[in-house]
Amino acid sequence: MVQALSVCGNASSIHSEGRQARAIVEKARRQLGEALGVSPGQVVFTSGASEAAAHALCPVVRAGGSEIPVSTLYVSATEHACILAGGRFSAQNVEVLPVDATGTLDLAALKDALAGHDRAQGSPMVAVMFANNETGVIQPVAQIAELVHAHDGFFVVDAVQAFGRIPFSATELGAHFILLSSHKIGGPQGAGALVLANGSISPAPLIRGGGQENFNRAGTENVAAIAGFAAAAGLAAGANGKTAGEIGAIAALRDSIETGISTICGEAGNKAGQPVFFGHGAPAGRLANTSCFAVPGIKAETALISLDLAGIAVSSGSACSSGKVNKSHVLEAMGVDDELAVCALRVSTGPQSTGSDAEAFLGAFRNIVNRIAA
Amino acid sequence: MVQALSVCGNASSIHSEGRQARAIVEKARRQLGEALGVSPGQVVFTSGASEAAAHALCPVVRAGGSEIPVSTLYVSATEHACILAGGRFSAQNVEVLPVDATGTLDLAALKDALAGHDRAQGSPMVAVMFANNETGVIQPVAQIAELVHAHDGFFVVDAVQAFGRIPFSATELGAHFILLSSHKIGGPQGAGALVLANGSISPAPLIRGGGQENFNRAGTENVAAIAGFAAAAGLAAGANGKTAGEIGAIAALRDSIETGISTICGEAGNKAGQPVFFGHGAPAGRLANTSCFAVPGIKAETALISLDLAGIAVSSGSACSSGKVNKSHVLEAMGVDDELAVCALRVSTGPQSTGSDAEAFLGAFRNIVNRIAA
Repeated sequence: MVQALSVCGNASSIHSEGRQARAIVEKARRQLGEALGVSPGQVVFTSGASEAAAHALCPVVRAGGSEIPVSTLYVSATEHACILAGGRFSAQNVEVLPVDATGTLDLAALKDALAGHDRAQGSPMVAVMFANNETGVIQPVAQIAELVHAHDGFFVVDAVQAFGRIPFSATELGAHFILLSSHKIGGPQGAGALVLANGSISPAPLIRGGGQENFNRAGTENVAAIAGFAAAAGLAAGANGKTAGEIGAIAALRDSIETGISTICGEAGNKAGQPVFFGHGAPAGRLANTSCFAVPGIKAETALISLDLAGIAVSSGSACSSGKVNKSHVLEAMGVDDELAVCALRVSTGPQSTGSDAEAFLGAFRNIVNRIAA
Repeated sequence: MVQALSVCGNASSIHSEGRQARAIVEKARRQLGEALGVSPGQVVFTSGASEAAAHALCPVVRAGGSEIPVSTLYVSATEHACILAGGRFSAQNVEVLPVDATGTLDLAALKDALAGHDRAQGSPMVAVMFANNETGVIQPVAQIAELVHAHDGFFVVDAVQAFGRIPFSATELGAHFILLSSHKIGGPQGAGALVLANGSISPAPLIRGGGQENFNRAGTENVAAIAGFAAAAGLAAGANGKTAGEIGAIAALRDSIETGISTICGEAGNKAGQPVFFGHGAPAGRLANTSCFAVPGIKAETALISLDLAGIAVSSGSACSSGKVNKSHVLEAMGVDDELAVCALRVSTGPQSTGSDAEAFLGAFRNIVNRIAA
């Protein structure tokens, strides 16, 4: 990135500085394409996943030379805020579908919704996240894709959390549009992508003007962030091709944290509540690196502050709102009652996390439980 | 920026890493606000000016609790592509107004258009650039603001080229929304701002989801680019407060380049065409650092390549399209014939440019003229 920043040309300029910048952007595009199993031309760089969502969720989809109207957007109740907001659909054209207690989309509800969809008004569009950002719960995207295709709809997959954590190929996913974020895979903030996974089908542009990104997204390219995104994707692509054994090792570390939490609460006996781990038993599983849990009586806000003082960064719910601890719409949709939901913590491990990091977390968490239980 | 990149927290997270990132973003917001004479809350960071344009050019403007419909967008014919594209207005609701031979908006045409505007359909919105990106021609924004306000319209000023080059205060400009770009003032690519210059009046959000930017723009903040933007704005704010003498010195360097071009072509006599400098005589003047000119018979593409080989980066028209030398819509609107327009070169000096840089350019340019004239 520092190298890219020093180039400082406009990637659309003809002079050497511009061509150098262009080379960086196009190399990044090839790297992303390779990591996803699509051609470089199918990668549209954006400023992040929220922009990619606003771009993808569009009532007009272009296929070849024609424009296809889309009348209703169907989303699960546990989507990220940028999907729930519906992009360029007006609120009355967004239908929210329920999830079960594990956080998994209710496939029967989706089937019913699509069966009842009025094709005369336009095509249906379905947007779901591959893996949830709060709980790590994985959606059965293959089954969802099958339903969407059976009803000739458009399928948007928010793969922000899944990329680099679940091996997948963009083409096998059955999605039309895939959303990615750089900073969720260790890259810099300010870059993301809308992947046009299904050939030349694309949403109408969101940011119009210059001809950048093959006329899909106007604006001078953020060369440095794109370079950083691709470098991170290169590492994540290794992750994207991870073996079951490697994923198992990550899950084992997460499981050891969950076992530790249970042990700590168990030792505190009746003085502390016993932990609830959200998303356990989800049919398609959870991300290997994520645990979302609550211990009744230990408020997330209290725990967050104590853990932060111990040098451990965890979250409650999504960070995307306002720096406040808000009620999680994800847990609410899963039927978790408010009293428990305000105790929900999300612990994620990173590629460099080790057993001693897990121990450090558990040590700090033990102190919190003991203080509450005292 | 490197320091900001190493913080790597999400500015909406509660933990220390998140709060550090938040502090960087809010410091940048204060710096931008100071440079423009507005409060920090009036600065909405975007991924760049094209996004800010798509955001500002919106058929729905929010004022306090109410939503005001906007029916027609009026733009000058020499606007940047992201303004001409009309943002979220459909093509039939964008009216393009003529400029005169100097590239100055035809104020009588604007007056007529606003007088004929059907208020029953909604408010008018007028978007003009403070200074043109190809010619440096400055628009009479104060007079335009007066006309827009007399018709109770919304005024959008694309100040991308003006910021740091023409001293101005956001509030005195009479604009509702001001567009800025980081990389045009020496900052990094990937940052820009929509300045809500008129209190709490704001366009409906373009990117929705999280509550970032006071619910004006969802998406994790690009902390490093925002930090770089503000640092550059700090320097540009010095420029924003530049004295007439300082601007005069920059203009003198540009004028010496123009005189040199004339001399070189004059010495070549009848063997070379004589240069035409675009925007000379514009009532509001030109940016001090920009010259756009054409020498008949010296195609821009040829000159660009020769100058690039000599280590000099110039442009023909805007870089924002496709890396190709396209016909300039700006020169076309000014009535420049095609044969001359394909010879148009834009030379801009930067804050570090010196007399010897000007000489280096003129030396390389003399070689081109002599080769053509030989």
